[in-house]
Amino acid sequence: MSASNQPADATQVARGSGIATFMGLPHTRDISGVDAAIVGIPSDTGGTPGSRSAPRVLRDVSSLLRPVHAHHNIAPGAHLRVVDYGDVPVIPGALLDTYAEMERVLAPFHAAGVVPIGIGGDHSVTLGELRAAARHHGPVALLQFDAHTDTYDEYYGGKIRYNSGTMFRRGVEEGVIDAQHSMMVGLRGTVYSTHDYQDARDLGFSTRTMDDIVELGLPQIVQDIRACVADRPLFLTFDVDSLDPSVAPGTGTLECGGLTMREAQTILRKLAGLHVVGCDVVEVNPPLDPTRTTAAAGATLVFEFLALLALARRGNDVARQPN
Amino acid sequence: MSASNQPADATQVARGSGIATFMGLPHTRDISGVDAAIVGIPSDTGGTPGSRSAPRVLRDVSSLLRPVHAHHNIAPGAHLRVVDYGDVPVIPGALLDTYAEMERVLAPFHAAGVVPIGIGGDHSVTLGELRAAARHHGPVALLQFDAHTDTYDEYYGGKIRYNSGTMFRRGVEEGVIDAQHSMMVGLRGTVYSTHDYQDARDLGFSTRTMDDIVELGLPQIVQDIRACVADRPLFLTFDVDSLDPSVAPGTGTLECGGLTMREAQTILRKLAGLHVVGCDVVEVNPPLDPTRTTAAAGATLVFEFLALLALARRGNDVARQPN
Amino acid sequence: MSASNQPADATQVARGSGIATFMGLPHTRDISGVDAAIVGIPSDTGGTPGSRSAPRVLRDVSSLLRPVHAHHNIAPGAHLRVVDYGDVPVIPGALLDTYAEMERVLAPFHAAGVVPIGIGGDHSVTLGELRAAARHHGPVALLQFDAHTDTYDEYYGGKIRYNSGTMFRRGVEEGVIDAQHSMMVGLRGTVYSTHDYQDARDLGFSTRTMDDIVELGLPQIVQDIRACVADRPLFLTFDVDSLDPSVAPGTGTLECGGLTMREAQTILRKLAGLHVVGCDVVEVNPPLDPTRTTAAAGATLVFEFLALLALARRGNDVARQPN
Amino acid sequence: MSASNQPADATQVARGSGIATFMGLPHTRDISGVDAAIVGIPSDTGGTPGSRSAPRVLRDVSSLLRPVHAHHNIAPGAHLRVVDYGDVPVIPGALLDTYAEMERVLAPFHAAGVVPIGIGGDHSVTLGELRAAARHHGPVALLQFDAHTDTYDEYYGGKIRYNSGTMFRRGVEEGVIDAQHSMMVGLRGTVYSTHDYQDARDLGFSTRTMDDIVELGLPQIVQDIRACVADRPLFLTFDVDSLDPSVAPGTGTLECGGLTMREAQTILRKLAGLHVVGCDVVEVNPPLDPTRTTAAAGATLVFEFLALLALARRGNDVARQPN
Amino acid sequence: MSASNQPADATQVARGSGIATFMGLPHTRDISGVDAAIVGIPSDTGGTPGSRSAPRVLRDVSSLLRPVHAHHNIAPGAHLRVVDYGDVPVIPGALLDTYAEMERVLAPFHAAGVVPIGIGGDHSVTLGELRAAARHHGPVALLQFDAHTDTYDEYYGGKIRYNSGTMFRRGVEEGVIDAQHSMMVGLRGTVYSTHDYQDARDLGFSTRTMDDIVELGLPQIVQDIRACVADRPLFLTFDVDSLDPSVAPGTGTLECGGLTMREAQTILRKLAGLHVVGCDVVEVNPPLDPTRTTAAAGATLVFEFLALLALARRGNDVARQPN
Amino acid sequence: MSASNQPADATQVARGSGIATFMGLPHTRDISGVDAAIVGIPSDTGGTPGSRSAPRVLRDVSSLLRPVHAHHNIAPGAHLRVVDYGDVPVIPGALLDTYAEMERVLAPFHAAGVVPIGIGGDHSVTLGELRAAARHHGPVALLQFDAHTDTYDEYYGGKIRYNSGTMFRRGVEEGVIDAQHSMMVGLRGTVYSTHDYQDARDLGFSTRTMDDIVELGLPQIVQDIRACVADRPLFLTFDVDSLDPSVAPGTGTLECGGLTMREAQTILRKLAGLHVVGCDVVEVNPPLDPTRTTAAAGATLVFEFLALLALARRGNDVARQPN
Repeated sequence: MSASNQPADATQVARGSGIATFMGLPHTRDISGVDAAIVGIPSDTGGTPGSRSAPRVLRDVSSLLRPVHAHHNIAPGAHLRVVDYGDVPVIPGALLDTYAEMERVLAPFHAAGVVPIGIGGDHSVTLGELRAAARHHGPVALLQFDAHTDTYDEYYGGKIRYNSGTMFRRGVEEGVIDAQHSMMVGLRGTVYSTHDYQDARDLGFSTRTMDDIVELGLPQIVQDIRACVADRPLFLTFDVDSLDPSVAPGTGTLECGGLTMREAQTILRKLAGLHVVGCDVVEVNPPLDPTRTTAAAGATLVFEFLALLALARRGNDVARQPN
Repeated sequence: MSASNQPADATQVARGSGIATFMGLPHTRDISGVDAAIVGIPSDTGGTPGSRSAPRVLRDVSSLLRPVHAHHNIAPGAHLRVVDYGDVPVIPGALLDTYAEMERVLAPFHAAGVVPIGIGGDHSVTLGELRAAARHHGPVALLQFDAHTDTYDEYYGGKIRYNSGTMFRRGVEEGVIDAQHSMMVGLRGTVYSTHDYQDARDLGFSTRTMDDIVELGLPQIVQDIRACVADRPLFLTFDVDSLDPSVAPGTGTLECGGLTMREAQTILRKLAGLHVVGCDVVEVNPPLDPTRTTAAAGATLVFEFLALLALARRGNDVARQPN
Repeated sequence: MSASNQPADATQVARGSGIATFMGLPHTRDISGVDAAIVGIPSDTGGTPGSRSAPRVLRDVSSLLRPVHAHHNIAPGAHLRVVDYGDVPVIPGALLDTYAEMERVLAPFHAAGVVPIGIGGDHSVTLGELRAAARHHGPVALLQFDAHTDTYDEYYGGKIRYNSGTMFRRGVEEGVIDAQHSMMVGLRGTVYSTHDYQDARDLGFSTRTMDDIVELGLPQIVQDIRACVADRPLFLTFDVDSLDPSVAPGTGTLECGGLTMREAQTILRKLAGLHVVGCDVVEVNPPLDPTRTTAAAGATLVFEFLALLALARRGNDVARQPN
Repeated sequence: MSASNQPADATQVARGSGIATFMGLPHTRDISGVDAAIVGIPSDTGGTPGSRSAPRVLRDVSSLLRPVHAHHNIAPGAHLRVVDYGDVPVIPGALLDTYAEMERVLAPFHAAGVVPIGIGGDHSVTLGELRAAARHHGPVALLQFDAHTDTYDEYYGGKIRYNSGTMFRRGVEEGVIDAQHSMMVGLRGTVYSTHDYQDARDLGFSTRTMDDIVELGLPQIVQDIRACVADRPLFLTFDVDSLDPSVAPGTGTLECGGLTMREAQTILRKLAGLHVVGCDVVEVNPPLDPTRTTAAAGATLVFEFLALLALARRGNDVARQPN
Repeated sequence: MSASNQPADATQVARGSGIATFMGLPHTRDISGVDAAIVGIPSDTGGTPGSRSAPRVLRDVSSLLRPVHAHHNIAPGAHLRVVDYGDVPVIPGALLDTYAEMERVLAPFHAAGVVPIGIGGDHSVTLGELRAAARHHGPVALLQFDAHTDTYDEYYGGKIRYNSGTMFRRGVEEGVIDAQHSMMVGLRGTVYSTHDYQDARDLGFSTRTMDDIVELGLPQIVQDIRACVADRPLFLTFDVDSLDPSVAPGTGTLECGGLTMREAQTILRKLAGLHVVGCDVVEVNPPLDPTRTTAAAGATLVFEFLALLALARRGNDVARQPN
Repeated sequence: MSASNQPADATQVARGSGIATFMGLPHTRDISGVDAAIVGIPSDTGGTPGSRSAPRVLRDVSSLLRPVHAHHNIAPGAHLRVVDYGDVPVIPGALLDTYAEMERVLAPFHAAGVVPIGIGGDHSVTLGELRAAARHHGPVALLQFDAHTDTYDEYYGGKIRYNSGTMFRRGVEEGVIDAQHSMMVGLRGTVYSTHDYQDARDLGFSTRTMDDIVELGLPQIVQDIRACVADRPLFLTFDVDSLDPSVAPGTGTLECGGLTMREAQTILRKLAGLHVVGCDVVEVNPPLDPTRTTAAAGATLVFEFLALLALARRGNDVARQPN
């Protein structure tokens, strides 16, 4: 593993200098020998406009991140070969074509054992990522941090069947989501009907609303997630609207009363060992984020993902060590 | 109850399109047969400048709200006839004249059994709303979410006796507030004298400071509110500066250490059954709210009010149902 | 013509109060007896995201406008019956469906002699407006204020043929634009090829670049426009990126060195008498417009259109007067 | 004249450090021996909310100014004793009381030969300044840079007779403005009636609209101003909405097509020798000025005033020199 | 103690009017007889650019503060003579020279028993404050609220040894910090190496990470602080990045998952009786703080410091009272 | 010349997608065979804080640029091999060390005939660029677009001799600037002394103030520049504060009354044929540029430079063509 795969270190190179890749990681399209790759998906055709500029902003803001995760006390770069792949080609105005590009680009990642870490883009992009994952892994478990179920059937009198409100119903229908091992975390606020959550559960998803989280407590939620996901190949999708608007003001569909970052991090940090085959952070919307705190939260979540992957790998490294 | 009284549904009509009424409700000056009406009060003559533009911004932001309240699992529009009345005429620079307009416009609401849901404006507008309510109901209980007591006597050497710092003292003096059944929730921070809170209590108000809330816990606070208000006609006024600045940055008199939205919503959601005859959300200040999170919080609070009203009505509906 | 068709007067009603219609005009879907109607088209599927929120923002900002145009010394409301129709239904993510809605809604305007004044949305919406106009008028002359030709053929390897860079080539192909009587004004900056402007001319359009404007002077430009358009039914489309970024910072494709508002107004004010059958202002992008000056420019341009229509009508009124 | 009356020099003291007085001038209430004094008037009760915070922001931004005016090549501080007096006490919500305070505070300035340089506040404050000036000088000539006449009679059905749209009619009625020697410069845009400008002229004011300025040219405008004002005691009031929104986005009533700063400065720089007894810059509205360019323009205008005063004084200094 | 040392009272003088000193306190360089003095340190040469403008912004925002601390029910101004000293001269681009100025200016404060309350500036300024304190008190205990240790050794290949990441290592080396009685509170997030926190402990510091705070609870943290600091002369430094980005978005090195203001205030309010000889609030970065909530938090923290000092003094006052 | 050296084309790849290099040019440290290279210099130690983030923002915003310059009708990429080199290593807080790095990195560019196009950073960085150029070319002519001379001698009592106000005096002293062939364009506003401009002239510089530009006209200014520079190796430095604040609000030292972009572009477009050996755009300050128009102007100026270089090369290409 070459030193060039290490993230930038602001004690050596001035923070925020240089071409903006995620954490200063090397930008390459060559994923051979790579463990995980940052992949931008600058598409907002399926949702609130603005999130298409998130990949660049997240890369820029990621300069705030230092190489080591203090809670786990682990340097992801010491255990993982990580690169910044750049962006998937997107076709503004043509979501299905963008899905096809995503599938074309990302399927080989899974075949090669590379975990793609998507940075959206609106949440509709996750369906493209799931399709790519399912090509290799079959239907994957979905752990969805979200204020909303995103399992509606259609919009605008049926004219739109693929957007950021429907893609997980499509994912179940297409057989790329294994709903029985999938859970939604953070649901709350206002919904379209009195049976929205039940609709999601009817598709097979488990749900944990904010009310559930407050009532049950974080340790129980973590336990529920682990029980639900079990050992299935897991796609972890984090819509930043699961966070409270105070934490993530810069997103398209604010719902009051969401997760604090401390809560989100507490949950994520307990998920080591799950079989993560892909993950993403979506719905950061830079034009709505003048404080850039939403982008900072998004970049931090990506780092939490990297730490989880590194912990898994460190376990393996230890196991593989000669004695 | 006609379908046209339903709020807009973003699965049918693109979110944020159309003339901006609150939640896309019909705009009409005809309140016959109406249960509740959104009423803008774009006056900031009595307080920090800027809140006069809140009614329009709250209407715009309310497009984020979907028709059903997930916690209560109730669609307010299924139980209430709600309209957007538009704004009360205000006279910038002449608060007393604005009060007269408010009384003229809103008194008939109470006579007709319509609950006006005011969207301010600075907090001084609440006195006008209280005068209108008291014409029909007599002195009303006041449940005041606020960082400050707003019961000062006068400002600037006595030159100003009506503004956003004095109106609740005036309300007691005028006999429109029933202080013995009124409570202030969320007091904290910096005050003008060591007896500010005692002054409020001397007027008859109960007080629950943020220190009280932390010490006693939310369930006790809810119980205290219900005991204090009892079955009196209640005006519920929510100054967004009761919220923490992280939640509601866009308001004129920030006080650190306030309520989270989760806390505010938890309290409000336990108030079903109180006899609410009017309510308002005040002090959203759009020029100070670049992230629009304060406006989102304000619109959400209005929706919490609607849900409370709907719960009460649903109870009645059930009671009235033939068997 | 009833008084209710008059715009709001801020000496009577506080500026910025009330439901936000354009200039406080009555909101109605009934266009019988109407001369001109403001029509929002909140679609940005075909262009830079963000302009979908322009209609609401333009309506709000239009409160700055007073009823009389000082240069022409004419009150449009004294000569025209104008209403705010609200918005055309749009289908985010499905531009062709949105076009169909536009055609369905707007064609009757032209049949009824009502001039629709569109407020976009990204520039791709103009094709829908042109289709509606051409149904009644046949191919229309186009006077296009724009930094760019928007006559490209396709994007992204042919996957996208309808967006804000191609719609005027489509318009010629579809026979809704009479290119021989059409002119582009304000072209400049950076282009995709050395023959972009020639391509537009090859389609039949006349072009006046910023270089031309500086060299020839505004009076000559006006003369050229009038000569080109002649007496054909004219659609006037104003992309705010024809303005300099100092004037209109809040738009998606800034091009330095554009028109000042004084220049744009000087040209527009000399166009009285042209046979305007439709017009629009597009590409105001509120999330990119923190100063709201772009929205103010957009609303002012709409008022310039109203003044042009009123001048024409006043002429007719005079002509029709008995003697 | 002590060195302590000199503005701050950023080659010696870091720009933007220290308590924010205008240009770092000494803050004192003692105006004895002073030639000119900066006086803040943080009142916006009579106009668009927000301008009350302008005095502090203008003081802060004035750190950009260096001690010498390059065009005139004069250091105002070398010829004038200038101080920052601080603010006039204002009574938010009570404009007439604020006027009384202004008159009480500022009348002694005129008696003592001190030129007060007001920094508003909304434009209504100028009436208070004029009253103070007229106490000593009698009716003063007014040179008014403004997009609007501000000579309306009343607002809101007569309920408001003093605000930022009426104060110059009041000033004529009260005999504090000598309208025959007064001129409005920069009128344009939208007005309330077809006789607004004529109404102003009927009061005695001369008017130069933006159309006039473009047609006649700046040299003629300067000549007209000088002819109109002649040798009368002059109050120079600069409403920043006379500037184009591109130059001054942060003001309450944007009117497109206004003066550039180069034009405004060109006019002002030719006014040396007029008998300026007071001046102000008003309607800078910081909450609407995220780029702070409006504040920078406002501070620069104050510096232009100081240069004019210094030029007059230098002339006198030369004349008084012994030979 | 003269009345003139009282902070401004917004019931008497309009909030936000007048020259901006901290809370409207008198600005003077004369510290004789003074108990505590606000001292701006507008330097950001050692850290993220932008914090140099914090002192002015904090002074402006401090107008929100009222004279009495509601939790302690104490008016600092009734027990302390407090002034606003203005700013220490800083040398942009020359941190060591700025340190020399700080030491020169502030050492006499300590000799005179005046507690300087610094408002930075980036965190590197604290070393200058510590040097000044140590001249009189010898090595001082440091209570450091911070997301980061700031005890790195050097940056950029050794070219920089003094900046906002190294100054506390320098402070120990120089003997101005008594690390054995010093504690860091709020550490979290991302670090440069797996031994960053251990490195700080090796220097003698105690550490309490956010993980510790959550696990141990605030009462234990308070007890630990008091035990660690004991009766040593204490410098209390508050880097606002110890707060969560939702609370303090306007700072240079955001770390998710930090303290809420309620938590920070709870800790600070329990520290009465510690021997505070100096304190500061640093890293407020106004250009990154469009909501101004970070500035409001910073000003509030200064007020918490004043309350602590007043409590100590009140205790002494009581003790000294004749009986 | 490979296709990979072409800038990105937004008709093929969605605008704003991909790793942000300038115009999507390839990022490489290999300058062999390269004609011009974009080089970021993210240093603001010598000036107003904030400009250090300009290189990344300019790269991001440059996505707005299309491959062909419409005025010259030339595609720079068709005549030049251009790359994005990334950034020079900078040492925040140590300007002289940063200069050394710049000289080390950039001198080989000149030796290899590569024109470095610097994107600052504050204006002090230009001295480092000039030192590098002079190593190969000897003293170079300087064409300086600037509101200020930047030829002061020292700041803060001599403690600072290298910053953004002194570097061109240093450049003359060091023999890297050939002042006799150098010109300053755009001087105006406020200055530190009555002899600032004369001081610059005494060093050998020619000056053209804004007053000169208005009086002489752009064609004469162009002629003067060409006469002054003649055939010397030229460094072209563009401080965006030479532009009017309406055009470039996001810079540290606003001076009203500056160049419009149309004027700046008119001048630059007439400079083809000058022997440009280096150039830069400096003082774009993103935290002060919420509209991003300053960044757009900066990116456009870089494109104007590229067009100038391409024109020169095309001339050569033509000359070299076989016949």
